[in-house]
Amino acid sequence: MNTLVSAYLEQHRDRFLQELFDYLRIPSVSSQSEHQPDIQRCAEWLQGALLKAGADLAEIFPTAGNPIVYGEKIISPQAPTVLVYGHYDVMPVDPLELWNTEPFEPVVRDGKIWGRGADDDKGQAFMHVKAVEALIATGQLRCNVKFMFEGEEEIGSGSLTTWCAEHKDMLVADVILVSDTSLLGMDTPSITCGLRGLAFVEVEATGPNRDLHSGLYGGAVVNPVNALCQMIGSLTDADGRITIPGFYDDVQEFSAAERTEINAAPFDEQAFVSAIGVREPRGEKGYTTLERKGIRPTLDVCGIWGGYTGEGAKTIIPSTAHAKVSMRLVAGQDFHKITRQFVEHMERIAPQYGVTVRCTPLHGGYPYVAPTDSAAYQAAARAMEDTFGKRPVPFYSGGSIPIISTFERTLGIKSILMGFGLDTDAIHSPNENYPLENFYRGIETIPLFYHYFAENHR
Amino acid sequence: MNTLVSAYLEQHRDRFLQELFDYLRIPSVSSQSEHQPDIQRCAEWLQGALLKAGADLAEIFPTAGNPIVYGEKIISPQAPTVLVYGHYDVMPVDPLELWNTEPFEPVVRDGKIWGRGADDDKGQAFMHVKAVEALIATGQLRCNVKFMFEGEEEIGSGSLTTWCAEHKDMLVADVILVSDTSLLGMDTPSITCGLRGLAFVEVEATGPNRDLHSGLYGGAVVNPVNALCQMIGSLTDADGRITIPGFYDDVQEFSAAERTEINAAPFDEQAFVSAIGVREPRGEKGYTTLERKGIRPTLDVCGIWGGYTGEGAKTIIPSTAHAKVSMRLVAGQDFHKITRQFVEHMERIAPQYGVTVRCTPLHGGYPYVAPTDSAAYQAAARAMEDTFGKRPVPFYSGGSIPIISTFERTLGIKSILMGFGLDTDAIHSPNENYPLENFYRGIETIPLFYHYFAENHR
Repeated sequence: MNTLVSAYLEQHRDRFLQELFDYLRIPSVSSQSEHQPDIQRCAEWLQGALLKAGADLAEIFPTAGNPIVYGEKIISPQAPTVLVYGHYDVMPVDPLELWNTEPFEPVVRDGKIWGRGADDDKGQAFMHVKAVEALIATGQLRCNVKFMFEGEEEIGSGSLTTWCAEHKDMLVADVILVSDTSLLGMDTPSITCGLRGLAFVEVEATGPNRDLHSGLYGGAVVNPVNALCQMIGSLTDADGRITIPGFYDDVQEFSAAERTEINAAPFDEQAFVSAIGVREPRGEKGYTTLERKGIRPTLDVCGIWGGYTGEGAKTIIPSTAHAKVSMRLVAGQDFHKITRQFVEHMERIAPQYGVTVRCTPLHGGYPYVAPTDSAAYQAAARAMEDTFGKRPVPFYSGGSIPIISTFERTLGIKSILMGFGLDTDAIHSPNENYPLENFYRGIETIPLFYHYFAENHR
Repeated sequence: MNTLVSAYLEQHRDRFLQELFDYLRIPSVSSQSEHQPDIQRCAEWLQGALLKAGADLAEIFPTAGNPIVYGEKIISPQAPTVLVYGHYDVMPVDPLELWNTEPFEPVVRDGKIWGRGADDDKGQAFMHVKAVEALIATGQLRCNVKFMFEGEEEIGSGSLTTWCAEHKDMLVADVILVSDTSLLGMDTPSITCGLRGLAFVEVEATGPNRDLHSGLYGGAVVNPVNALCQMIGSLTDADGRITIPGFYDDVQEFSAAERTEINAAPFDEQAFVSAIGVREPRGEKGYTTLERKGIRPTLDVCGIWGGYTGEGAKTIIPSTAHAKVSMRLVAGQDFHKITRQFVEHMERIAPQYGVTVRCTPLHGGYPYVAPTDSAAYQAAARAMEDTFGKRPVPFYSGGSIPIISTFERTLGIKSILMGFGLDTDAIHSPNENYPLENFYRGIETIPLFYHYFAENHR
């Protein structure tokens, strides 16, 4: 590692953290319209941060949705180009009462940064800004760098897809570098080489045309909450398999050898269940926990509501019931097709449960698989080996970053998912956090990636 | 009918309506604690209304819950005594956006009074106050009258039970007269001779100790919303029968002859389903709609919630899911036993669905059956025959007025359920209403009840 860069990082540690805190204080929640002004403010803040880091230019591109922040530092037409992707939007914070600190007032406690976005993805993306700042400031940058930060990742990256297609020339690069994933552990560095896709659909089941008195009508008319429960219940069988016809048709099955490799990844199942407070893992019969969350599709209700949910009792048969259903998809599955299969299945079974359903697809994304034999993967692996003292393992993550497969489809560029989060960071949950150690380790590793990537490119 | 009374009623029609409007304007919602001051104000208003009607005394009795308003007009120790029961509390108004008018700003439109409580039970109970006023004002009262109005009927009448036990001597009467039920129709006068009981339990199902990212964990851990859906779904079988072990053990089965009589009541099934906008009735196999809602028990989810229910998408596995479950009970069933069976069953099946459950019984009540051969029933039937021009039919209602069975158990007095509502009154729903015709017909019928009841008693 270049000692100039190391010295720079050491010298500016505290400032980097204070700058991240400024970034985290902006409540840029993309799924709630009241936060629109914060989204705008966050984009402007990021533009300033890129310029401050030494970018030649930084621009805010308006879109039909939230703005995209683009910046670049071009050193030579001969140098390889790294396109850094990140997102500045964050998840909602409810249930607020479960947070131990204010979600948008970051603090350091027990060696961790606490706050919404501390990891996902403000903390992780900001490491790239600071790493590139160090490379520029010390005259060590050997790659061209482009930054592309969006504000709709948590709601499906709708605008970025169009924007990428429209700015293909500007975005030409050799690799896309992303930190929006987790390590298996600080002792088990890993690089994510698989991501699941997503089909997310909201379902409304309607019975009677108004809420009814549960005494005067109960027993004689269908209750749409009971019906929706039965319908959702029927979507999974006793073996944990999803019953939607055709759902598994395109799923890429892994060979026995591949499954052995997947299961060879260090994974402490007892620690996994203990950390989340459940007695045992649970999922599709015939697969291990690593397989279930890495290479198998899912169907989870992310939210359900219907009828009276306030204090005390209200004896009604509700008129409607609603559910938000997330299906994680794996290599081979097309979210358009799965969404259609889900909607058709729900519409087909609704009459037998006595309700009408209306399904609204909310978003979707393709799964992604990264090759481990590319120059970029090898550069990332060497960089992590230097800072972690251990070769990282390739890992199939269960999460979805739909835009990663879109990049491949639209720009023709593969992504390297070099994330520094931990499973315990509680992303999307109350008390999201990011260990200080991971934040600084990331800033230290990224310059090494540039170093090895430029070296391989020679 | 005594012409003096008739003339009085005719003369004061408009004032009666304006007084009812004053009563309806008080938002005395018992299940929401922010309405406590309205509850108090409503009790005071009612006390004033009783004195104004000619009661010798009217008192507000504080209780551990909401106050009880008691009033009386004693004319002679030899006269029979009628104890009038009603409730001044009302249901919550949400979803507010479905109301066409302000719930607590009553209006008359299309011949109906619109507003929360217009029927249930302010409109119906107030008829008794005005009918007795007419009898007193015209010197025609031949019975002693006692009034007992509570403010907790919609949340289980918790305080009234204790209060009745403590004031047994004060409440001695020959019959309890109640208007808190519906007619089969204006052309089909009826008297309710059966009420269902109720067991109402809130269920919380817990999986992981916090909301989890549905990608990183999905497929490998139980989702408590999916699990609760499956559990609720499993509580009813394909024949619409409830699967809780022992649930039907004590259900009083009706003879073929009794079932024929029940089904002989005029009932337009097509109108019933059309009015509520469903294609067909639905319920327990082997029973008619009238039986399903009159003499068979039910299990309805009145409310369900869990996970993210806001705008857009949030891809989580929620930590908990909740449901409010109402079971309507019929003759023979004990709500304590059914509540226990429900809770034990949910706790027993929870592990197989991978969740822990916590059940909180919210309230309960016994079913009730009224004899049709009593002097009081006969007086009610003659009174209605006079004003409707048709003999009323005995009717098993599916609703619950838990206190009615408590009166029998505590005071040893049977109740006559002479209600004047209609199924279309939308009680407990948005746009509750009460036809003007029913309001005035009730005020006209009640004095006749007193007349025939005193006559029978001679």
